[in-house]
Amino acid sequence: MSNHVKKAVVLLSGGLDSATVLAMAQAEGFECYALSFDYGQRHHSELQAADRVAESLGAKEHRLFDLNLRQFGGSALTDDAIDVPDAAVDGEDNGIPVTYVPARNTVFLSLALAWAEVLGAMDIFIGVNSVDYSGYPDCRPEFISAYQAMANLATKEGIEGDGFQINTPLISLTKAQIIQKGSALGVDYGLTVSCYNPDDEGRACGQCDSCALRRAGFSSAKIEDPTRYR
Amino acid sequence: MSNHVKKAVVLLSGGLDSATVLAMAQAEGFECYALSFDYGQRHHSELQAADRVAESLGAKEHRLFDLNLRQFGGSALTDDAIDVPDAAVDGEDNGIPVTYVPARNTVFLSLALAWAEVLGAMDIFIGVNSVDYSGYPDCRPEFISAYQAMANLATKEGIEGDGFQINTPLISLTKAQIIQKGSALGVDYGLTVSCYNPDDEGRACGQCDSCALRRAGFSSAKIEDPTRYR
Repeated sequence: MSNHVKKAVVLLSGGLDSATVLAMAQAEGFECYALSFDYGQRHHSELQAADRVAESLGAKEHRLFDLNLRQFGGSALTDDAIDVPDAAVDGEDNGIPVTYVPARNTVFLSLALAWAEVLGAMDIFIGVNSVDYSGYPDCRPEFISAYQAMANLATKEGIEGDGFQINTPLISLTKAQIIQKGSALGVDYGLTVSCYNPDDEGRACGQCDSCALRRAGFSSAKIEDPTRYR
Repeated sequence: MSNHVKKAVVLLSGGLDSATVLAMAQAEGFECYALSFDYGQRHHSELQAADRVAESLGAKEHRLFDLNLRQFGGSALTDDAIDVPDAAVDGEDNGIPVTYVPARNTVFLSLALAWAEVLGAMDIFIGVNSVDYSGYPDCRPEFISAYQAMANLATKEGIEGDGFQINTPLISLTKAQIIQKGSALGVDYGLTVSCYNPDDEGRACGQCDSCALRRAGFSSAKIEDPTRYR
């Protein structure tokens, strides 16, 4: 473990936001260790996108962590034994979107903290945003502050040193501001996948909520949209 | 999800402490969902013990969650690609015991929180103890308080309802008091495995630190030691 290099674990989903976060962490001089999760319900093309993004932005390493949350069962979304009716695929049946993961950011940050401890990294970056996704409790600044306080009581490194820092550089930015920031840092958004329903090659549907939000972001940022639509 | 049954997720390792916690949660009237982790470095007999304990104490369900922390690599303890020299097996080389798991209780509690969210459980039980294991930061009351505060900002259930409760009924008990408590509740400690080096049938070595601590606990509690020694 070097004393000269500042290491950071960066949560990377393959989407637009976390790609921007990785570029920002790199620009701050961190040696970045990108972490993605295969938790059973993702489109494979998203994880391939994460890999391309990590490489193109010069992350030191990209780790795909296999986290099978289906093991908890109990809901149609996480349990193979329960049939998901076709109509529920888009979450209309019960209001829970198909992308829902229980205690998501808590679980992801905890595994990031575990890897950070192994690496000797004191910084964790996560692309949460309380502007566009204000409905999620674990995207708010007060959650992040509480998480950081907990992390600094959880480990020897947190108590003895300067402490862990949970960095959320996007937390108060609009989608357009995020895109402007990333573009200035050279992020190739054509590599990222935001669509809820991409095809096997990661091309976007152009129709879902996530595609609409992304398209509006490029439009409002006055930056050409490099998204690969099918 | 029933409104009449209080559900709890109980972290269960197969050892003496968590078996006692499960018995205490059952005695409080909770419908208990026991959660164990297969994280790569455990003796299989410990997980079999957890299964026997869950069944004997009447847990509603026992889930073994496959959490392969070897994926983080970076240390001889979690990375198969790095040879562990024989001399380091007992941790003498670097002071890190072979049972070390990075950010352990943070990761375990986060997955317990995820399952609790799926189940509609507002209580989580964990057998941390700040008397016998005071060296671990994540066994102290201040860590647990910080974790609970974070959990209650992380989820809709935490914000809107009475909040999640992280229960640590053993936190200030000695090993002897734990054994007395569990014995009074009918825990069969012969089913549990505390040894760092049990044989395939879960029989204890009687020599390691954990065996010594356990033996002293029974002696001081003046309760016959039902441990199966080989």
